[in-house]
Amino acid sequence: MSDYKQADQNLKDKLYKKIEEKTDKMIQIRRYLHQHPELSFEEKETGKYIANFYKDLDVKVESNYGDGYGVVVTIDSGKPGKTIALRADFDGLPVKEETGLPYASQNEGVMHACGHDGHTAYLLILAECLNELKDDFDGKVKIIHQPAEETPPGGAPGMIKAGVLKGVDGIIGVHGWAIVPYGTVQCTVGPVMTGRSSFKLTIHGKGGHGSAPNLANDANVAASYFVTIAQTIISRRTDPFDMCTLTIGNFDGRGSFNVIKDSVFLEGDVRFMNVAERPIIEKNFKNIVKGLEIMFGVKVDLFYNADYPVLDNDENLTKEVQYSLENSNIKELEKVDTISRNTASEDFAYFSQNIPGVYMFVGEMPDDGVYSAHHSPTFVINEKALPLAAKTVGAAALDFLANK
Amino acid sequence: MSDYKQADQNLKDKLYKKIEEKTDKMIQIRRYLHQHPELSFEEKETGKYIANFYKDLDVKVESNYGDGYGVVVTIDSGKPGKTIALRADFDGLPVKEETGLPYASQNEGVMHACGHDGHTAYLLILAECLNELKDDFDGKVKIIHQPAEETPPGGAPGMIKAGVLKGVDGIIGVHGWAIVPYGTVQCTVGPVMTGRSSFKLTIHGKGGHGSAPNLANDANVAASYFVTIAQTIISRRTDPFDMCTLTIGNFDGRGSFNVIKDSVFLEGDVRFMNVAERPIIEKNFKNIVKGLEIMFGVKVDLFYNADYPVLDNDENLTKEVQYSLENSNIKELEKVDTISRNTASEDFAYFSQNIPGVYMFVGEMPDDGVYSAHHSPTFVINEKALPLAAKTVGAAALDFLANK
Amino acid sequence: MSDYKQADQNLKDKLYKKIEEKTDKMIQIRRYLHQHPELSFEEKETGKYIANFYKDLDVKVESNYGDGYGVVVTIDSGKPGKTIALRADFDGLPVKEETGLPYASQNEGVMHACGHDGHTAYLLILAECLNELKDDFDGKVKIIHQPAEETPPGGAPGMIKAGVLKGVDGIIGVHGWAIVPYGTVQCTVGPVMTGRSSFKLTIHGKGGHGSAPNLANDANVAASYFVTIAQTIISRRTDPFDMCTLTIGNFDGRGSFNVIKDSVFLEGDVRFMNVAERPIIEKNFKNIVKGLEIMFGVKVDLFYNADYPVLDNDENLTKEVQYSLENSNIKELEKVDTISRNTASEDFAYFSQNIPGVYMFVGEMPDDGVYSAHHSPTFVINEKALPLAAKTVGAAALDFLANK
Amino acid sequence: MSDYKQADQNLKDKLYKKIEEKTDKMIQIRRYLHQHPELSFEEKETGKYIANFYKDLDVKVESNYGDGYGVVVTIDSGKPGKTIALRADFDGLPVKEETGLPYASQNEGVMHACGHDGHTAYLLILAECLNELKDDFDGKVKIIHQPAEETPPGGAPGMIKAGVLKGVDGIIGVHGWAIVPYGTVQCTVGPVMTGRSSFKLTIHGKGGHGSAPNLANDANVAASYFVTIAQTIISRRTDPFDMCTLTIGNFDGRGSFNVIKDSVFLEGDVRFMNVAERPIIEKNFKNIVKGLEIMFGVKVDLFYNADYPVLDNDENLTKEVQYSLENSNIKELEKVDTISRNTASEDFAYFSQNIPGVYMFVGEMPDDGVYSAHHSPTFVINEKALPLAAKTVGAAALDFLANK
Repeated sequence: MSDYKQADQNLKDKLYKKIEEKTDKMIQIRRYLHQHPELSFEEKETGKYIANFYKDLDVKVESNYGDGYGVVVTIDSGKPGKTIALRADFDGLPVKEETGLPYASQNEGVMHACGHDGHTAYLLILAECLNELKDDFDGKVKIIHQPAEETPPGGAPGMIKAGVLKGVDGIIGVHGWAIVPYGTVQCTVGPVMTGRSSFKLTIHGKGGHGSAPNLANDANVAASYFVTIAQTIISRRTDPFDMCTLTIGNFDGRGSFNVIKDSVFLEGDVRFMNVAERPIIEKNFKNIVKGLEIMFGVKVDLFYNADYPVLDNDENLTKEVQYSLENSNIKELEKVDTISRNTASEDFAYFSQNIPGVYMFVGEMPDDGVYSAHHSPTFVINEKALPLAAKTVGAAALDFLANK
Repeated sequence: MSDYKQADQNLKDKLYKKIEEKTDKMIQIRRYLHQHPELSFEEKETGKYIANFYKDLDVKVESNYGDGYGVVVTIDSGKPGKTIALRADFDGLPVKEETGLPYASQNEGVMHACGHDGHTAYLLILAECLNELKDDFDGKVKIIHQPAEETPPGGAPGMIKAGVLKGVDGIIGVHGWAIVPYGTVQCTVGPVMTGRSSFKLTIHGKGGHGSAPNLANDANVAASYFVTIAQTIISRRTDPFDMCTLTIGNFDGRGSFNVIKDSVFLEGDVRFMNVAERPIIEKNFKNIVKGLEIMFGVKVDLFYNADYPVLDNDENLTKEVQYSLENSNIKELEKVDTISRNTASEDFAYFSQNIPGVYMFVGEMPDDGVYSAHHSPTFVINEKALPLAAKTVGAAALDFLANK
Repeated sequence: MSDYKQADQNLKDKLYKKIEEKTDKMIQIRRYLHQHPELSFEEKETGKYIANFYKDLDVKVESNYGDGYGVVVTIDSGKPGKTIALRADFDGLPVKEETGLPYASQNEGVMHACGHDGHTAYLLILAECLNELKDDFDGKVKIIHQPAEETPPGGAPGMIKAGVLKGVDGIIGVHGWAIVPYGTVQCTVGPVMTGRSSFKLTIHGKGGHGSAPNLANDANVAASYFVTIAQTIISRRTDPFDMCTLTIGNFDGRGSFNVIKDSVFLEGDVRFMNVAERPIIEKNFKNIVKGLEIMFGVKVDLFYNADYPVLDNDENLTKEVQYSLENSNIKELEKVDTISRNTASEDFAYFSQNIPGVYMFVGEMPDDGVYSAHHSPTFVINEKALPLAAKTVGAAALDFLANK
Repeated sequence: MSDYKQADQNLKDKLYKKIEEKTDKMIQIRRYLHQHPELSFEEKETGKYIANFYKDLDVKVESNYGDGYGVVVTIDSGKPGKTIALRADFDGLPVKEETGLPYASQNEGVMHACGHDGHTAYLLILAECLNELKDDFDGKVKIIHQPAEETPPGGAPGMIKAGVLKGVDGIIGVHGWAIVPYGTVQCTVGPVMTGRSSFKLTIHGKGGHGSAPNLANDANVAASYFVTIAQTIISRRTDPFDMCTLTIGNFDGRGSFNVIKDSVFLEGDVRFMNVAERPIIEKNFKNIVKGLEIMFGVKVDLFYNADYPVLDNDENLTKEVQYSLENSNIKELEKVDTISRNTASEDFAYFSQNIPGVYMFVGEMPDDGVYSAHHSPTFVINEKALPLAAKTVGAAALDFLANK
């Protein structure tokens, strides 16, 4: 690992101090957001809240950026230099909260069950601090508050199309991660989160009485064989060295027990860490569908969509950030893990398709080690991870700007 | 075919004349019932309507007979002799009528979509006529208005338990059948409608994220393999000479496209014309379930229920009725079909398990030859079949009583 | 059942007496043939032996009739009348005999394991007896010794093509049947033995190393899915009232444990008792093959052959023969079974496609009730069934000729 | 990468020169061995040939070492120091050669189709050269000529049990690899070749006639479903990040087309690069077998064997050898690839389970770029790779001994 030019440690220490002073405020913001979650592409109030945060600061604020309620804030040092973007997402999920927290969701059936409330809170405070320090660094920091990460096509493509990456030299994002202990940051070169394609298919057979199958064409039977044959895409048709999955999460063949189903609806997705597998899986999937039609005499309506890209951390930028993490004297940062990858997908991947990007995971496991899965009704975070995220990303940003 | 002693043809001709005179009334009753269908085990008003029909006749009426709203009427000639039971069912179905008829269902979502309204109408009038003729025959006629044929366990078992068959020597039932031309009656010796077992099973796996299948246990996958393996019960494990079917009409594996299902619910039935296959199918089904648990590490909650028996027409009684049909001079009766069987099931089968019974199908195809499937929203009958049913059953009953 | 004109009982009694006198000779012939079995289409010596039997009798003998070693013998009464054909097959099977009988096969690896030796023996003696009685009946008896019943296309088509049925009014055949008790004859109207189609398919994938499935295309996997999907032809696509089977008796996917198979060979057959199912099964089978090619990217070479027809016993002739059986005073004949059918196939079916035919099963279960399956190495017959077969067929033939 | 202490470059240059001078001899040896291949555990003559090669050299030779025909040679410098082992395998394969080479196999049906002839040839010459240079290095070189690599349990375990690794500090092996260009050497830290378990299973059903499946139990059907269900081990039950495969290379369900199979024999293997998957796969496989028995009423005889371990290159030793490769001035060595892994298995893995080991792949693709798969009848090597292998391994060994 080469050496990289870094920001002055004094500057970073000043940043850490500011973050520590504003940590209470950060927690309050996070809890307020937790109480008021909004679904993807419907985060109108959250967008307003974010924009309002910046109203008295000397920064450029752009609201309703892209297809939804994105907010883009530019912190300009006034001096020439590079531009680093910092991105946090802010949508909630259609989950009914069961944490019993005093600041639990007040929006019945919607919950910040993936921690985007924390992402937003840390980034607001970090932005405020960096703005206060802008005389001490060169170039610009672009704060990207992105909506709608959870729902394809995601909020990122719209913001990119609207120009959010124009003039940006690098982008950093983090996800708080409840299964990783507090004190650990994962920062890995290369593919770290999966690409995804999703599909919906309706298999049309012919209904009839359960006792006369030859006069009907049982869509439940055709669909079941489909599921068993689709297993071979993973077991036989993709490179065993490549991480690939295919899940049919929705098999809707509901009907009366003694009536042969006329049509069945299936829905699912595929994931892969090597982008070369995307077309291989798609081609095989479509061949199986086509063969099914002939085999069973059914008609299949297929919608197959290549959505999130593989999230591929840029080698140079990631190594630079790893170096920053190791050399920035963040006292809470106990461990930098450079080999972990994650099977999930993230629309941050769109940013790093366009410019060098790095996406990190900040451990936010509760101190007692008891955690709930992301997206579950009992999901909770360790709020101590929020100032750590702010310091980590802040130091990396300052180092990036210093490394001309 | 031997000769059977029969009732006097004059008596039968008198019966036919009475039926013809009351045909308009019969149609009115049928249409009234069609407008007011009730679901199985909920036919309170229909039961009252039926009982009320008999209130001024010199017959014995027993209401709320059995588990539900059954009505049993005894027409006693006052002379010694045999007792013949005549049975009609009177429940409707959870179907939203789409016939556009002026007398369509007024009970939204419920419909006489199997023609039980017609069964009841013909039998009410036939009972009235036979009561008027009771001086001319010996023995008794027992009219059984049975509820809840459509829904297991059916209305028959409760009425039998309550004693409806006590002292009865034979029982006759008919079903109007829309796919058979008007003018034809099917009357076949032996098994004519299937026995049935039904099942519900919940397959419990373990939920999880679609991209991490090894941390979960996909119930949709286990259920799909189950469906494919269950095919072998019919294809390899039952006697190819025996009519057997297995249908899974309900496959409820609904969920989010990218979440692995924790449990799936399946529901279906099996049919067979040879009662010997019932335990063979059940044993194999349960073995497949048990094997599935081990193969896939799932837990299966299985409810397997042997419901309707094979409807087995008594050889002697059926031949006697066939003889009656051929020799009773019913002018509308063009054809007696003695070889047809039906894949559906009927709880009349319970009656013929206990005493000699015969179940016939009376063609009620519309004159234009265009018919809709039983249980469909557009199901209609040919009302001309109702007086024919009355004459057919009436003549057979009189012949039965005459054949001491 | 109507009455049929019959031959004089005295004539039949004379026939029975002659058969009884020649029973020892019949047994000797049968045992000689048992020692010298020959495979289908290779029965040169058996053909010679049969022809030689007739050499001193006043009958017309035609050898090498049809495609193989068929022998046709005409017994002409010299008087005008009808012609009845009696047929017996005479080929053995590629089975290594394990009966331990003193007269076991001397032709290693070939065995009369289906009892065609007995068929031939009874018919030779019956022919001799009928020839001796030809002054007492009118018309002609045509004796058809048919080779190659066991191997498609069978010996029957060639003999028919050569004209064996010209001028023949009816044909009778019997099979000795070891699972039916001695004393019983099965004689049933309608379809009694199945039609058959057979198939061979080679599934071509692409070989490779077992650890790199994505670089190969595993023919064993495609073939296995094929077998599971083919089950639906029987379970869902044919009429459940129709007897249908599909068996893949040969799955040759042999190879090295760690090498992916490039091609697999499958072979099997389908059976049906209703000829309407033949094209339905064929069409569905071919659709599954075609779908498999697309699903798995394999190439399939398919040979699909409609071979033996359904053996359909002519209604009039069969009823006439049933009447003969019931009214011919054959003392050993204890039971005439008129409802049994058999899942196996028989090329006698070709004869009864062309002229009225009846095919019966004569019980030849050993007296101790212990029997082996036909085609098994330990197959044995009850030789007492041979004279009974001769009497049964002989009486039926005489009655047929008498019923002008 | 740290710096490692190395042997003097002059010494290495002397070694290279010696190897160059003996290259013709090396090729002659390789071609002689190619003409005289022997199967695993039957390499008696090859063992003799190898031992004979050393007979006039001042080295210790131990023959018939271990379970088979292993030869172990000790080159002792007489000075204290470390001991490095160099290993080459020498068995052939049951393949019928189709190369058309003038020095093709003279042992019909056996072929050096994986290049072990080349392994032996390069190592014999390297041993001779090192022995000539033993005054110039310290410690010992142990030459391990190992038989029976191709056939489980492999020749390695027996030699280890006999003590071949006693006092050895590290071990180096190479495989010539035809799909890698000449000039490249692959040398990767960590798991580089798969572990393997292999299995044989006989599924016992019950034979019968193809037209009566209910009286039999079709082993071909049970086996086919088994194959389809086994796919889920890879598709759903192992970590998608882990390379795992399952292949059933042998499906022996041969039989007559119209006879239901009584038993079927399957054989195959599983591979994995993460040893943690071995017990997971085994457990799931056995559960599927157990479930199959219950589902289909079959009895399964299963032999499941955990054979070759994952070949895991020792981190320290591998980095040391990588350093040696980069710093030894071997002019033909154009590229050192440090990231490639291989799906195949190797019993060298047993050595590196016991002591630090490194296994490398030396590119031996023909110069025209046209290569045949290892184990194929047309497999050929690029003989220029043999002296390169000798130099590579020789330099690494000298550096290892120098790095005290």
